[in-house]
Amino acid sequence: MGIAGFGTVGRAVARIVAGGVHPGLRLTHVCNRDVARKRVDWAGPDVVWTDSFQALVDSPVDVIVELIGGHDPARAWIEQALAAGKSVVTANKQVIAHGGPALLREAERRGRHLLFEAAVAGGVPILRGLREGVAGDRLRRIQGILNGTCNYVLTRMESAGLTFADALAEAQRLGYAEADPTDDVDGHDAGAKLAILAGVGLGRVVRVDDIPVEPITAVAAVDIGYARRLGCVIRQVARAELLPGGRGLHAAVRPALVSEASTLGRVEGSRNVVVVDGEFGGETAFSGFGAGGAPTAVAVVSDLIAIARGNAAPPDGWLPASGEPSPVAREFEAPHYVRFMIDDRPGIVASLARVFSHHGINLDAVLQEPGWPKAELPFVMTLEPCSSAAVAAALADAARFDFHVRAPLWLPMFVDRPDAAGGSSPE
Amino acid sequence: MGIAGFGTVGRAVARIVAGGVHPGLRLTHVCNRDVARKRVDWAGPDVVWTDSFQALVDSPVDVIVELIGGHDPARAWIEQALAAGKSVVTANKQVIAHGGPALLREAERRGRHLLFEAAVAGGVPILRGLREGVAGDRLRRIQGILNGTCNYVLTRMESAGLTFADALAEAQRLGYAEADPTDDVDGHDAGAKLAILAGVGLGRVVRVDDIPVEPITAVAAVDIGYARRLGCVIRQVARAELLPGGRGLHAAVRPALVSEASTLGRVEGSRNVVVVDGEFGGETAFSGFGAGGAPTAVAVVSDLIAIARGNAAPPDGWLPASGEPSPVAREFEAPHYVRFMIDDRPGIVASLARVFSHHGINLDAVLQEPGWPKAELPFVMTLEPCSSAAVAAALADAARFDFHVRAPLWLPMFVDRPDAAGGSSPE
Repeated sequence: MGIAGFGTVGRAVARIVAGGVHPGLRLTHVCNRDVARKRVDWAGPDVVWTDSFQALVDSPVDVIVELIGGHDPARAWIEQALAAGKSVVTANKQVIAHGGPALLREAERRGRHLLFEAAVAGGVPILRGLREGVAGDRLRRIQGILNGTCNYVLTRMESAGLTFADALAEAQRLGYAEADPTDDVDGHDAGAKLAILAGVGLGRVVRVDDIPVEPITAVAAVDIGYARRLGCVIRQVARAELLPGGRGLHAAVRPALVSEASTLGRVEGSRNVVVVDGEFGGETAFSGFGAGGAPTAVAVVSDLIAIARGNAAPPDGWLPASGEPSPVAREFEAPHYVRFMIDDRPGIVASLARVFSHHGINLDAVLQEPGWPKAELPFVMTLEPCSSAAVAAALADAARFDFHVRAPLWLPMFVDRPDAAGGSSPE
Repeated sequence: MGIAGFGTVGRAVARIVAGGVHPGLRLTHVCNRDVARKRVDWAGPDVVWTDSFQALVDSPVDVIVELIGGHDPARAWIEQALAAGKSVVTANKQVIAHGGPALLREAERRGRHLLFEAAVAGGVPILRGLREGVAGDRLRRIQGILNGTCNYVLTRMESAGLTFADALAEAQRLGYAEADPTDDVDGHDAGAKLAILAGVGLGRVVRVDDIPVEPITAVAAVDIGYARRLGCVIRQVARAELLPGGRGLHAAVRPALVSEASTLGRVEGSRNVVVVDGEFGGETAFSGFGAGGAPTAVAVVSDLIAIARGNAAPPDGWLPASGEPSPVAREFEAPHYVRFMIDDRPGIVASLARVFSHHGINLDAVLQEPGWPKAELPFVMTLEPCSSAAVAAALADAARFDFHVRAPLWLPMFVDRPDAAGGSSPE
């Protein structure tokens, strides 16, 4: 085997292989830009170190591990490796989310493998779990906390009362967030992973760009507090759900309230979890370290072992072969949390209640904590289950009032009980 | 395929197969004692219903699903099926825990499969997760909540303040406990499952009878309360851990205190969870419904699909082929919880403290809730990490005091924090 990209994950893969976890694995080539500075002696005396991917492709290795990340040139490299008759193991969510079906067809045509367990939720063996572990079920929904940076930030806002900015700065200081955390915070990272999960678990081709994403940046300390009063926490939730009657699916990544006691609500720090709901097996959850060199390397090495043992699942079933993307419904039904920030005066609740009522939405509760200035007063309305489109329309309507100090924040409340079948019941 | 044993799980398997989850599966034979009363029309018009296992073996089915349960005659039937060149899928923990290695060798010799995902934790795909999902890791420890009956009883004692007897009666009324729950409550059920987990995940042959089990019957309402004061809950914990330097392993099933906030502590009702600790991947958890017809059937059908797809893992790696059982150490190090029930008088704490001190054990805390009669007063001592043998010796020593109204209950406290995995940079 050869490794392309000798960063944190690449080194961790080499370490595990050098440690002899599986005697059938042997590292013979490492390819990296400016490879001299990457060379380590513990990888073995026979390893060929090269700057050239072509040299790796021309070598006799049977499997190439792609760990350079990003879409380009990674995708072209994977194509090149498959064309040369190599199997490929990758941790690259961008390449798989955008080009997975085509690459898998190519692997199938060549009689080679393309495995990518590490592309979603790092060390959590969720893709194999979906394809094989719960193969006997008919899955309806997949929900996950797929971005460790967001989860770290939100749980620190909760546990230490930090502001979003301070929690993010702390995460960066501790290495839990990149210098540029845009992709994490705005949901694009989790969106790519969700597209892969929907493909493997629900059998639907989902275009990454069709998945709506909402950033977690608008979540403020006051929301964390109100969520707690509702028995909830706020999480960046990635969620894909089949719509009845084959009408495509709903898929989105957004901050949402989830029950404190739920599987999603209980994931802390930089961990990941994926919860699948099946028609027969109910709720099954997989959790663990979603990132970091060593856990991600475990997923890569598990893929390598499957190929070495000869029982890797063939390429054709990983993602739906048909290139026809499923329509992604943006609308969904759920109870909602709406936090207003207002310049207080009499009659505001009544005005808002009238607007919601006009849009056919029932109020569930109005919460207002004491101790805030009247000129910038946060308060919360929770709404009974209703369509997200109705909430958007009602809030567009309510924008005409001049008491808003800031635009309201609205979040769905995914609070159904684990055992409840089908839709969400807020009682 | 043919099914032997058409009870709750068998019917659920037939339902899933009839529902067309996987087009490659076809049910052609059902074998059950007195089969006429089992016949259903939805299974398909071509199904042959028979009382005779021999008829199933003589039929052209390629896979036989064994769901009759118990050790005999199930084991002989599985041998017979393999000898006739059939692959076998079973949910039978007793047969696999006691005879797994020999049966797998036989399957290997015949070039057939023997899969048993449903034998441990029902619908939770933990065996495949261990063998394939975290294959790239080197596992050190496996902990699980593997018995839904015990977990239901303990969580109901917690949440509703029920006595053990009332919680068990409720579980029986609701179908979460058998009419005779002995095997569940005394730990033998979880012990058989732990032996299988240790084989698949830690690569050690463990004789079921070598695994010490402690019943949960001695846990009283007062213990639930004291555990809560310590930030803990009480669970029936199945735990297998490799000892350093290849000195065998520790394995046991017993009630223990675990942190309320831990993965084990958060499993409620009749659910199961398995938490594995790996050298590289840190803590990875798998949870879901550990029993019930439909979830167990999902595991069976997933095994059938793996065989149909041709990527089932070959028999030789499921359990260690060598028949040499690993020595199972009964002793372990942990902080301990000791609850005394005494006829109160001055000097008792001092006397007990002296005994523990004499055995080299440091006290951590003494807890005594008000409101109990002096003549039958429960109080708790927690001990700093020490060997279980020292605790046993100290309590044997303390048995000479005449203030005991009942023998003390001592439980380990498995309260270590989920450790950080190797790397830290999130994605």
